[in-house]
Amino acid sequence: MQKRIEVGILGATGMVGQHFIKFLQGHPWFDLTWLGASDRSAGKRYKDAMTWHLAGGTPDSVANLVVEDCKPGNAPRLLFSAMDAGVATEIERAFAEAGHVVVSNSKNHRMERDVPLLVPEINPDHLKLVAHQHARGWKGQIVTNPNCSTVMLTMGLAALKPFGITRVIATTMQAISGAGYPGVPSMDIMGNVIPYIGGEEEKMQQETQKIMGEFRGDHIEPLAAKVSAHCNRVAVVDGHTVTVSVEFSSKPSEADLIRAIDVFKSLPQDRNLPSAPARPVIYMHEANRPQPRKDAERERGMTVFVGRMRKCPVFDYKFVSMGHNTVRGAAGAAVLNAELMQSEGMLD
Amino acid sequence: MQKRIEVGILGATGMVGQHFIKFLQGHPWFDLTWLGASDRSAGKRYKDAMTWHLAGGTPDSVANLVVEDCKPGNAPRLLFSAMDAGVATEIERAFAEAGHVVVSNSKNHRMERDVPLLVPEINPDHLKLVAHQHARGWKGQIVTNPNCSTVMLTMGLAALKPFGITRVIATTMQAISGAGYPGVPSMDIMGNVIPYIGGEEEKMQQETQKIMGEFRGDHIEPLAAKVSAHCNRVAVVDGHTVTVSVEFSSKPSEADLIRAIDVFKSLPQDRNLPSAPARPVIYMHEANRPQPRKDAERERGMTVFVGRMRKCPVFDYKFVSMGHNTVRGAAGAAVLNAELMQSEGMLD
Amino acid sequence: MQKRIEVGILGATGMVGQHFIKFLQGHPWFDLTWLGASDRSAGKRYKDAMTWHLAGGTPDSVANLVVEDCKPGNAPRLLFSAMDAGVATEIERAFAEAGHVVVSNSKNHRMERDVPLLVPEINPDHLKLVAHQHARGWKGQIVTNPNCSTVMLTMGLAALKPFGITRVIATTMQAISGAGYPGVPSMDIMGNVIPYIGGEEEKMQQETQKIMGEFRGDHIEPLAAKVSAHCNRVAVVDGHTVTVSVEFSSKPSEADLIRAIDVFKSLPQDRNLPSAPARPVIYMHEANRPQPRKDAERERGMTVFVGRMRKCPVFDYKFVSMGHNTVRGAAGAAVLNAELMQSEGMLD
Amino acid sequence: MQKRIEVGILGATGMVGQHFIKFLQGHPWFDLTWLGASDRSAGKRYKDAMTWHLAGGTPDSVANLVVEDCKPGNAPRLLFSAMDAGVATEIERAFAEAGHVVVSNSKNHRMERDVPLLVPEINPDHLKLVAHQHARGWKGQIVTNPNCSTVMLTMGLAALKPFGITRVIATTMQAISGAGYPGVPSMDIMGNVIPYIGGEEEKMQQETQKIMGEFRGDHIEPLAAKVSAHCNRVAVVDGHTVTVSVEFSSKPSEADLIRAIDVFKSLPQDRNLPSAPARPVIYMHEANRPQPRKDAERERGMTVFVGRMRKCPVFDYKFVSMGHNTVRGAAGAAVLNAELMQSEGMLD
Repeated sequence: MQKRIEVGILGATGMVGQHFIKFLQGHPWFDLTWLGASDRSAGKRYKDAMTWHLAGGTPDSVANLVVEDCKPGNAPRLLFSAMDAGVATEIERAFAEAGHVVVSNSKNHRMERDVPLLVPEINPDHLKLVAHQHARGWKGQIVTNPNCSTVMLTMGLAALKPFGITRVIATTMQAISGAGYPGVPSMDIMGNVIPYIGGEEEKMQQETQKIMGEFRGDHIEPLAAKVSAHCNRVAVVDGHTVTVSVEFSSKPSEADLIRAIDVFKSLPQDRNLPSAPARPVIYMHEANRPQPRKDAERERGMTVFVGRMRKCPVFDYKFVSMGHNTVRGAAGAAVLNAELMQSEGMLD
Repeated sequence: MQKRIEVGILGATGMVGQHFIKFLQGHPWFDLTWLGASDRSAGKRYKDAMTWHLAGGTPDSVANLVVEDCKPGNAPRLLFSAMDAGVATEIERAFAEAGHVVVSNSKNHRMERDVPLLVPEINPDHLKLVAHQHARGWKGQIVTNPNCSTVMLTMGLAALKPFGITRVIATTMQAISGAGYPGVPSMDIMGNVIPYIGGEEEKMQQETQKIMGEFRGDHIEPLAAKVSAHCNRVAVVDGHTVTVSVEFSSKPSEADLIRAIDVFKSLPQDRNLPSAPARPVIYMHEANRPQPRKDAERERGMTVFVGRMRKCPVFDYKFVSMGHNTVRGAAGAAVLNAELMQSEGMLD
Repeated sequence: MQKRIEVGILGATGMVGQHFIKFLQGHPWFDLTWLGASDRSAGKRYKDAMTWHLAGGTPDSVANLVVEDCKPGNAPRLLFSAMDAGVATEIERAFAEAGHVVVSNSKNHRMERDVPLLVPEINPDHLKLVAHQHARGWKGQIVTNPNCSTVMLTMGLAALKPFGITRVIATTMQAISGAGYPGVPSMDIMGNVIPYIGGEEEKMQQETQKIMGEFRGDHIEPLAAKVSAHCNRVAVVDGHTVTVSVEFSSKPSEADLIRAIDVFKSLPQDRNLPSAPARPVIYMHEANRPQPRKDAERERGMTVFVGRMRKCPVFDYKFVSMGHNTVRGAAGAAVLNAELMQSEGMLD
Repeated sequence: MQKRIEVGILGATGMVGQHFIKFLQGHPWFDLTWLGASDRSAGKRYKDAMTWHLAGGTPDSVANLVVEDCKPGNAPRLLFSAMDAGVATEIERAFAEAGHVVVSNSKNHRMERDVPLLVPEINPDHLKLVAHQHARGWKGQIVTNPNCSTVMLTMGLAALKPFGITRVIATTMQAISGAGYPGVPSMDIMGNVIPYIGGEEEKMQQETQKIMGEFRGDHIEPLAAKVSAHCNRVAVVDGHTVTVSVEFSSKPSEADLIRAIDVFKSLPQDRNLPSAPARPVIYMHEANRPQPRKDAERERGMTVFVGRMRKCPVFDYKFVSMGHNTVRGAAGAAVLNAELMQSEGMLD
């Protein structure tokens, strides 16, 4: 029987922190016993330190936990970071230095040379990068997951990588939950499209190349493919949709591509990690799917759905990819990263 | 002083018909005196033959007009067609044969060799194609405007054509009003994205090539550029937004492109046609514009707004284009086409 | 161990039928083995006979069932009716006559003298009415559940009945899912309120009096209280919200009322019926709850949430009541009715 | 010819301030020449001091005005106040003391004994109260308009007052624009209802009694009718909808009530004030109207629409009232108040 592992959350009172709490409810390996937040919240019971913004109510198991300062000390070794970008750099480093394993959803360390930008189904070998973090004098480690819109794009592309991806143009239609709380004012998004999300396009372009790149001992050689992203906010609660046109170096048929998606499985499935979906990517044959409100919650939010594979008059093929941005694109992604680490014996 | 011209509407009871009625209110040249619809409505007063679906109420000037059968006879010479695709082919032909000028928003005749697919600011010379319709034995003519999403794309591209457009990948986020009434069920689109609109992508791809093609005496030579469209429905009432990545044969700077948009004017502006906007395309410098709910209604809905011109890592540049789908993309487009014809003396 | 009972659905292809299918998945007593629909669908596999409109996909267990005609014959004895009002009267009667137990969500028979309008937590004794249906020459029975908005009102009032309800004024804000599919056109409801739902106010007013009335042997003596309803459609997917002002003949304190809600339990809870929520009504103390998007799905959609109990300057108190219209207000309500019948030995 | 009057706005950078600016565009009497805001904005050009949140862009006529401190000095005599409640009390008083006429949309002074809570169509005589403000040592005056939801209720009731209103129960469904900017987070209201707006119910209840009360020399005798309000936020951009059940001391017929609405006119109409709608209240006969998205913008947003007059099983009648919350309920209301004052010679 699996020995249970205590875990904590850095930035537990924000909306991403709440998603972590929700996702970790009933986890078979991890016990959430520690919640860290800013000075303002420290010392209060969790239920008094925040307003719960997710559907349903504050889980009983955390409601009465006393929130702690985000300083190394009595926190468990494994910490999920849901910190705001404004403070994550220093705090995550301090915890890593002090020997904690920081599995972070924050963007701050993602593009650093010795930090894995990990998607267990795509690049589990990138995890080896953490060995080089010792050179920083850290006793612990930082592992990151991608930006939520990057996940939907790269999962859609993952199964197609063997056909030789050379160029990608993607347009996102992103849910409001991706912006946290209070996040997007309703006066801005109701019945509207906002064709801009600060920094998002650069993240999608760079992160995709790193995630799909190759591990070369002490660094990741980025995928040579060129990637261009157009990022938009739409009036959807959960679920990021991405349209993708892609050019391949080989000449696959439509059937080749769909078959590749249908059979795509990876290490998390082989190892039966608790948060791994049975199938990381599911191809939907209906003409008008996937759709965020109807499909994002399926498979516990951990599967990315692809549909509408068809010829592109400019590149080779085009398709749609959609997944749950706060689960597969945030909290669930990080928890799956931690499960991969545990299955590698890295948390012992 | 302009002699007033009587006009009618084919398909007056549907939603596009209602948009025509609304747009023609107070028109300085055209008097709406005739409304045609199906057998079911013929003989009734307009107000009793339909339910008015647009904001505001049924204009008084048409409420008591008696709806007629869509058969040539006592209809005025100039007719705007808002007919459903299922019936437009035969009916529009019958009117053209009988000597009427049919200015149609329907898709049925758009791609025919001798029918202009007209955007007055882009290809006013295509109007000459109608001369060849005599060969069909028609005493009248059919002139068409593009599909609503095509308009937003081609207007965005029009000013950039001199730089040599070679490849275009576009993704639309289209308003529900584009689907008519009852149109999209709320259970399908509330808080959702539908990544599919039947036939829309093919229309955008083909129509763009014809609109931006060259008049060669008896036909249009399509633009050689390759065009790929991804069409999506979003929870917006009015205004289609399009993200565009474009490759040029020349190497313009970002400033060159914005300047080209800023100075873009065309025949409708020169002739001061009543429905012509002062500027057909306006470039917005704010980081997060244009937006459908905030910008579509500006300039009476006849201007297309472009923003976010920036380098594309895959092609040369990318930008956003947005305009009012039922005005610039439908009723207003057709009325402007008729105004161009009148200014050419074709309605005398 | 409970013997499993085969059940069928009349009107299985419509949206209410789909809600029944979804709700019956994994039911501990009932096995869904029979699907009835119109001639048009009969003979097809279920997955080919309809388009699935709910989140998630068509459950595997029914996808390949062959749809049957809605005629008595080989259908199981227990049938849930999700039929349209236009056809329910005759078909439900035919099945009851032939010996089936029809547990109906349709409005058609609700107000008939010998038909129970049943809410198991409120009026389980009304079930005795069915004995009088023999007088019709029926071998079977018809039992009904209320209109979805009536459920949210009566559940909110149920615990307060001992204080002597004399007058009630209620305003609903109803979800679009209550209108079926295609239901409300998006052009009508996006960013809008429709202050009218045909027949709904009369249903809420009459049904409330019957549900809360007293069983008198061969009929129900309606509650003497006067009830007035204002029914509105709002842009919500699931969950009907009702504001209620209520006058009592006794003079309870606010604390009395909240306590009455807190301790309210009834037969379904005592008997631990499978679909009975642990608490039929939960009082929420937050100032701005309940809310449909955040609370309707809780407790499997079977609990009604009440909040904001406060003095009413006109009547005695006012409050808000909210519940899941397609679960507690439709499919779940009917299934709970059948469970009550089973617990009474009426399905043996 | 009318002499033009210079006017200013206190709190010009907020959303209500923007509504004032928009509404005052092209006003035939008032020239907007002065904009006041907080220290943070003072000294900047208006276009640099705020982000414009309304549809369309910042009007050219104010874009380059330099924002001033909200301190009496060089401001014009007539000032519209769009100040936040947190600061309005002191600042409005300072301006009144210094001789300015402050026509305020803020709640702060509404319920004070010597301050008119003015709706020109309902209680123009209440304006006489301002004479008593001299007793405060003020050289100027403060006049207020009601809370936006109060306006929709009282306008709906105004024409019915002669029938003797004794009890009113109202439920609002309020637009997000009523909450300013950033206002309601989209995560709270998308696809949702929030059954609570802080302080709103008390305002509706008290303000209604004052507005419909009688001028008694030095104070207003509140209407004796009891009023109860339930206030809700819904996913609507502009337009507050109110359901109303009302008890009368006389026994009017439905036709009496509708006729009273149809003929209702008042001083602003008689004097043809520039912002007065031709008819302050319009009764709509369609079964499902008024609706905010379709009707709020009509008649320049200054008319309140009433519909669905019908018997109430509890009180005598019930109906729906709807109007534009930021126009008739805020900026337009205040401008009409100022026009009334000007027509009374109070601004000379």
